[in-house]
Amino acid sequence: MLEGAMNCSILKRAQDKELVEIQIHNLRDYSLDKHHRVDDYPFGGEAGMVMQIEPIDNIISLLKSQRSYDEVIFTSPDGERFDQKMANRMSSFENIIILCGHYKGIDYRIREHLITKEISIGDYVLTGGELAAAIITDAIVRLIPGAIGDEQSALSDSFQDNLLAPPVYTRPAEYKGWKVPDILLSGHEAKIDEWKLKQAIARTKLLRPDLLEDK
Amino acid sequence: MLEGAMNCSILKRAQDKELVEIQIHNLRDYSLDKHHRVDDYPFGGEAGMVMQIEPIDNIISLLKSQRSYDEVIFTSPDGERFDQKMANRMSSFENIIILCGHYKGIDYRIREHLITKEISIGDYVLTGGELAAAIITDAIVRLIPGAIGDEQSALSDSFQDNLLAPPVYTRPAEYKGWKVPDILLSGHEAKIDEWKLKQAIARTKLLRPDLLEDK
Repeated sequence: MLEGAMNCSILKRAQDKELVEIQIHNLRDYSLDKHHRVDDYPFGGEAGMVMQIEPIDNIISLLKSQRSYDEVIFTSPDGERFDQKMANRMSSFENIIILCGHYKGIDYRIREHLITKEISIGDYVLTGGELAAAIITDAIVRLIPGAIGDEQSALSDSFQDNLLAPPVYTRPAEYKGWKVPDILLSGHEAKIDEWKLKQAIARTKLLRPDLLEDK
Repeated sequence: MLEGAMNCSILKRAQDKELVEIQIHNLRDYSLDKHHRVDDYPFGGEAGMVMQIEPIDNIISLLKSQRSYDEVIFTSPDGERFDQKMANRMSSFENIIILCGHYKGIDYRIREHLITKEISIGDYVLTGGELAAAIITDAIVRLIPGAIGDEQSALSDSFQDNLLAPPVYTRPAEYKGWKVPDILLSGHEAKIDEWKLKQAIARTKLLRPDLLEDK
């Protein structure tokens, strides 16, 4: 699941350019159980399976013996909400571990003793933490200078100035009677910039007024 | 990128059991350009590339000629916020299309004329919509009856009753001096349930008081 996500597009290019190193570890390799089990039934009769502390402690201890980490992150729906500001901050980190939970959850002692930061990518429940880890990785890595072709492009993304992005259009100028706004075809750079800013503010006021208050 | 995510774990099992059918379409196959281009420079000189209307209109029109769709979804940071309630609602849909944007964005006329619902999975910018589509798919499919082994497990997930999940623990009962709470080892089912509910409420009050107001 993670290999596909981590080896496409920007993430692949950033690794090829050696801007970032991404290592995927299989927890089963760190289980001392002969069947490589990493989960067991929960105490107290909850439905579902729970990931055990030992394999996770083993891998985190091994990694920490090899280099130092800014954060050991667990993705959980009750963690701190991931947003663009957090992505910006984390894009300057040296090393992070992201632990992907699965099944019903992970033994709570892992969260108490081994995890330094819990992050939620949104108020929804996923099968596992893999997709959440992929989201966090993608959002961070694309901010590393050189990762995306045109750095200007990341700076004008939604949220970077607490504004949603203005509408964008490309060829053809007319399709099935649907036209591109005349101003964008005018060539008046200053007027176009003014139109874009107005559109960005109008869209933000309409769709996400909370972003403007946050400014 | 999508094939890895769509063919693992619960999503794979749900497709094998024929509970859901997931088709991934490559927009390039619907480009009339001889180089299978699907993007072009934006009007008005914005940085980055913009996805063109024609290939997307072609594929959506084709799909709509074959069956009816509850929604044609575009994932965008300025869309309606995806949450567990929306996942619940969408898990009863017959058919949906999720259009994955890429590059700087998609021609705004697509959003005006072809998309019926814009969804954001969170306040962060991703390289493309693929991971967002995978998140939405995973969150929805695991709610389809039979998709996860133990249906009770989904019902006791975070958010399903506006409460965060209580802590979970598994063997061993003690690890490096870190102990599982005695109550969970007591065997008193009623007291354990009471403890879990208290923990769930306490965690929700501490971490996400907004969920309780929403009840």
